[in-house]
Amino acid sequence: MFALKGIIIHTPTKDTLEIHENEYVLVSDDGICEGIVSLLPDAYQKAKVYDYTDCFIFPGMCDMHVHAPQYGFRGMGLLIDGDSDWSTWFDNYSFPEESQYKDLGYAEKAYSRFVNDLLTKTTTTRASVFATIHRPATEYLMKKMAEAGFSAFVGKLNMDRNSKYGLIETMEESIEETERWLEDTASPEYGDVKPIITPRYTPSCTDPLMEQLGILAEKYQVPVQSHLSENLEEIEWVKQLKPEISFYAQAYDMYGLFGSKVPTVMAHCIYPLDGEFELLKNRDVMVAHCPACNLSAANGIAPVLDYLEAGIKVGLGSDMAGSYTLNLLYNITAAINVSKARFFMIEQNGDPYAKKHFLSVANAFYLATKGGGQFFGKVGSFEEGYEFDAVVYDSRMLNDFRERSVEDRFHRLLWTFEQAMICSKFIRGKLVYENPEF
Amino acid sequence: MFALKGIIIHTPTKDTLEIHENEYVLVSDDGICEGIVSLLPDAYQKAKVYDYTDCFIFPGMCDMHVHAPQYGFRGMGLLIDGDSDWSTWFDNYSFPEESQYKDLGYAEKAYSRFVNDLLTKTTTTRASVFATIHRPATEYLMKKMAEAGFSAFVGKLNMDRNSKYGLIETMEESIEETERWLEDTASPEYGDVKPIITPRYTPSCTDPLMEQLGILAEKYQVPVQSHLSENLEEIEWVKQLKPEISFYAQAYDMYGLFGSKVPTVMAHCIYPLDGEFELLKNRDVMVAHCPACNLSAANGIAPVLDYLEAGIKVGLGSDMAGSYTLNLLYNITAAINVSKARFFMIEQNGDPYAKKHFLSVANAFYLATKGGGQFFGKVGSFEEGYEFDAVVYDSRMLNDFRERSVEDRFHRLLWTFEQAMICSKFIRGKLVYENPEF
Repeated sequence: MFALKGIIIHTPTKDTLEIHENEYVLVSDDGICEGIVSLLPDAYQKAKVYDYTDCFIFPGMCDMHVHAPQYGFRGMGLLIDGDSDWSTWFDNYSFPEESQYKDLGYAEKAYSRFVNDLLTKTTTTRASVFATIHRPATEYLMKKMAEAGFSAFVGKLNMDRNSKYGLIETMEESIEETERWLEDTASPEYGDVKPIITPRYTPSCTDPLMEQLGILAEKYQVPVQSHLSENLEEIEWVKQLKPEISFYAQAYDMYGLFGSKVPTVMAHCIYPLDGEFELLKNRDVMVAHCPACNLSAANGIAPVLDYLEAGIKVGLGSDMAGSYTLNLLYNITAAINVSKARFFMIEQNGDPYAKKHFLSVANAFYLATKGGGQFFGKVGSFEEGYEFDAVVYDSRMLNDFRERSVEDRFHRLLWTFEQAMICSKFIRGKLVYENPEF
Repeated sequence: MFALKGIIIHTPTKDTLEIHENEYVLVSDDGICEGIVSLLPDAYQKAKVYDYTDCFIFPGMCDMHVHAPQYGFRGMGLLIDGDSDWSTWFDNYSFPEESQYKDLGYAEKAYSRFVNDLLTKTTTTRASVFATIHRPATEYLMKKMAEAGFSAFVGKLNMDRNSKYGLIETMEESIEETERWLEDTASPEYGDVKPIITPRYTPSCTDPLMEQLGILAEKYQVPVQSHLSENLEEIEWVKQLKPEISFYAQAYDMYGLFGSKVPTVMAHCIYPLDGEFELLKNRDVMVAHCPACNLSAANGIAPVLDYLEAGIKVGLGSDMAGSYTLNLLYNITAAINVSKARFFMIEQNGDPYAKKHFLSVANAFYLATKGGGQFFGKVGSFEEGYEFDAVVYDSRMLNDFRERSVEDRFHRLLWTFEQAMICSKFIRGKLVYENPEF
């Protein structure tokens, strides 16, 4: 058992941001939170206490949509002018880069960097990761993440149509490699890093492939992730590919890939037209909201408040490299920003006195922690019984020429996190990173 | 005379981004650009050459709207939930903080920090700055900026109504102090830091005050800055305060404070309704576009592409503390992002194949450099005859496990500038900052 002392901040509900100033969060021997207290109880008198007085202690964050192989080209080439679009970005960056991962040596260099940066430069402790179609590279990434102490789902992608640069499989190869990967990754060396069935998205997968993936997901009881309704062009394309369905989500649901058999998380969900909203709710599918990418890819803004109000599960995704940084703090503020844009461009409707309707700081922090955490069990909060994941930030540089309140420093951290320093990180009760500069 | 060698990037027109890879930019003894060349001409053979091979050399950037006293509460309290609005932010942060600047000791501490950070942590070389109503503090700020080598306009604010916390003047005090300030700051110790007449905005200034400010601006031939059409509530308020006018800009124009007598820059201009657009153009008034604040304050998105296409001058503003960082690189990408939001929320109108219409990287870089630079003369470009302002960034950390093209590193710098290092800064041909870590 051990305890951390510091400024403990978490969101037990989507509307409740709790700040416990220089109190203790207690952690049991098996890595489970035993509550937040102002004085150490008797049972903890001899336990180790990590003294993070005046530092912020947050629940570790859950990146519910991240393309690991795209980290290498973050910040590059995404809709740099009105003539560029999704397909030029795929053609110039995404597909050529991902195709390099057939070379395991390349994958080792790139994924080592990714895992190191994810560990040391971000708030992330859990993630739902897209790799590439390549089984060996995906297994390497998973082992590397397990070594670093992460708890995560990682997907070998499936793609048997509409690709380029050799980044494509036959249906048979795709299924064979996927099943082998599911068996390989049952080995203990993968720790808490588990496979997740990952059809890239409907335009990348033929019907027979989708059907087989549904069978594998059920057989191995492995969850599912994919993309859904990310932009108008994609939705139109899916309509053409599958004229028999009445909305996009059915293209997954008809093969058991939309929450009916195993838990499912879908990235984006920006335009939940015609029954899709209801199906998200009825199938208990989690939405991975990717606000930075909503803007950078000029896709639109997901109706996150509507999802939350309807009780649909929502987590936050960096969507690397549709956004530019792996640190989810960036996407917390992006989520607030885009919801403001949605408010004044859709809901305000010219009324200067319209009731404000956008994500609060509490809402956005919740998305990044307990919102996404639901996909992993009891994760993303310091309530009793939750698995202890935490990230600690030094708050000292958030004062300047005069001292500011804890709440003000917290807000400043969210908006200017690049100025502050990560001190340490814990995953499932284990210290996985300590910053030597702290 | 001297020269800089490196990756020279500038935008001679709003649509032309030029990249000169490891060439030279030449600077005359009087600090004027003499062109970009691939080989040093004879006349420069004995001149000093700053070797920034593989570093980016940009024109110094022009922050056309920045509240210096708000730097102290950046990242704090701005619309943190649906119950907060502009007026709570003014009441809780803006007015109480600004009122502290009546204490010169406080102002010295705060402004020293501001000037130091503006010099060492940002791309800014020129600025149009709002101070507070306090003359002594404003003069301190101006001297400090001059000492640091900046070329700038700084305004003592005028406010004789609708304020709190003692942050208010009588009309007579306001005019008396303003005139004394105009005379004080004619002294050589203010270098290139010049006064600019600054009615905070119409709700802060009575008609008699506005009238007197118009007279002073003309008498001393000093330019004017203020806020215009920032959000729907403010526009509604101005309508109530001045029922006789047909659009907001007339509230300035009727007193000679809208470009008819002296150059004028207006922040925001988000809703240019009913003739305002035409008046901006006819009076040659510069728009200071503040994209980060467009989102953070949930105001709306200025129609910047329309302004540019109509030939209206547009510069970029950080609008500290409506945004969170002083570095205009943040607002370059914010300008691109918000224009994408404007595209997909207004112009795309449900058409998946609508022609994309948003700011390109070239457009946004132009706004931050030559766009705003027009307010200072021939500034913001490395074309021959332009005053030499420059900022140099190390580009080495923008590669990672493999080398990327110059263009890719440039884009990555824009989106993740916090990872990169400023090497040095030049203003009007003078080296004003060298990073000891470079």
